[in-house]
Amino acid sequence: MDIDPSVHLVKPGMKLRLNDRDPADRGGLTIGKSEARDRLKDLRRRMTDLQEKLYAEGERSLLVVLQAMDTGGKDSTIRAVTQGINPQGTWVRSFKAPSKNELARDYLWRVHKQVPPRGTIGIFNRSHYEDVLIVRVHGWVDEETIVQRYSEINDFERLLTNSGTRIVKIMLHISKEYQLGRLRRRLERPDKHWKFNPGDLRERALWYDYQDAYERALTNTSTKHAPWYVIPAETRWYRNLVVAQTIVNALESMNPAFPAPDFDPADYPPDSLV
Amino acid sequence: MDIDPSVHLVKPGMKLRLNDRDPADRGGLTIGKSEARDRLKDLRRRMTDLQEKLYAEGERSLLVVLQAMDTGGKDSTIRAVTQGINPQGTWVRSFKAPSKNELARDYLWRVHKQVPPRGTIGIFNRSHYEDVLIVRVHGWVDEETIVQRYSEINDFERLLTNSGTRIVKIMLHISKEYQLGRLRRRLERPDKHWKFNPGDLRERALWYDYQDAYERALTNTSTKHAPWYVIPAETRWYRNLVVAQTIVNALESMNPAFPAPDFDPADYPPDSLV
Repeated sequence: MDIDPSVHLVKPGMKLRLNDRDPADRGGLTIGKSEARDRLKDLRRRMTDLQEKLYAEGERSLLVVLQAMDTGGKDSTIRAVTQGINPQGTWVRSFKAPSKNELARDYLWRVHKQVPPRGTIGIFNRSHYEDVLIVRVHGWVDEETIVQRYSEINDFERLLTNSGTRIVKIMLHISKEYQLGRLRRRLERPDKHWKFNPGDLRERALWYDYQDAYERALTNTSTKHAPWYVIPAETRWYRNLVVAQTIVNALESMNPAFPAPDFDPADYPPDSLV
Repeated sequence: MDIDPSVHLVKPGMKLRLNDRDPADRGGLTIGKSEARDRLKDLRRRMTDLQEKLYAEGERSLLVVLQAMDTGGKDSTIRAVTQGINPQGTWVRSFKAPSKNELARDYLWRVHKQVPPRGTIGIFNRSHYEDVLIVRVHGWVDEETIVQRYSEINDFERLLTNSGTRIVKIMLHISKEYQLGRLRRRLERPDKHWKFNPGDLRERALWYDYQDAYERALTNTSTKHAPWYVIPAETRWYRNLVVAQTIVNALESMNPAFPAPDFDPADYPPDSLV
């Protein structure tokens, strides 16, 4: 039985409350780690088949937007879910703090530059949503501008949708306590020190402001054409399965197909080739 | 007395009829060539002053979108109007037939990449409007998509406006007869041969389809935040004056100012410097 990611959807028009969503939820699944591994492998196989058709067709793309609090598991999710997928048809892009050159244009400029080309599955590790999340939490622009950005983002995502890009947006949901454990681990294990950044503690102190910013952003930008999913991320095997299933479902609903040949194969009987 | 470009405005919400607009109109001006030259020089001086402030301020930009039929004079207008302006603060970009890499994304992708950075005056020699002009005339996408593009373009231009870009759009208006004269000139004068392209004759045969595509596009995308001007372009000195005046007016209404210093000049009396 397939996992049903729709239970984690932010219904367009409905107010999202993160407190009502359990970050340790496993969707009632009582499977072991090895069955979870098998299921993930199976989902990746389906994803690979669909991706090959998407690429051959060359008309459309899938864009997965991935957002999370620090230690939410964005990198490890991307690794787990895309393992073995043809890298030629995968388009992963990370968005860090904007450069001076990027700040010289509107905030969607650098994001638009990086949209996946037709035929590919794109994954954004952070995205234009930072411009209504960290930017709002720190008050770098006023609230009126944030509200305006929600509409601008919806317009931008509609443009991409109209142009053949299917958009799925995923927030990996963790609790403040879970983050504490992950940060401690980074400090305790020398092999994880490189992942620790003192600045993360300053952001952690703003945890509830971030949760509020996420709630507002997702409430205002979960649309029919570009829906948000809040995926429980404290159980990693469940997180990976739901993300993979969400991507497979999106691809299946796109129903990509190998294009018809632009010649008549009857003109080239195999034994005519010399 | 300043020229008044507002007589050439396409009023938002009003249907544009190109037949009602005289491409040889000189706005009732009865000045000689040498007075026209002096006036243009004066406008360029004002533009240079305003542009320096826009650059120093570094917060906003002006984008001039320039469209015309072949031989409409886009290149020579840009040359005449920007002569002597600081090139560091000018951002001219031409859009030719899209590359394969550009076609792999939505049609606004390559345009968004080229928007002028804050502090500059940008001029687009052709633009995203080709995607509702030549594309419509040749039926490369269906009419429903064209109509959808009008809204997408309005949304996109609103994003830029919200982000500090003032947008002014100019169509250089000529007649079919005028174009004939210009094309003949390119064939008669060996030094103009390089400008002639047999493909231009195929497009010329579609003249009325183009006029219709312009009328619809400009009617649907002349907005308060990004208005269209249809500028009579058969009299070159008048064309140059109106375009220059339109740019000066836009800059003056933006009212750029040198920024306040981020130090107290009183801390640095000139005689304290060694």
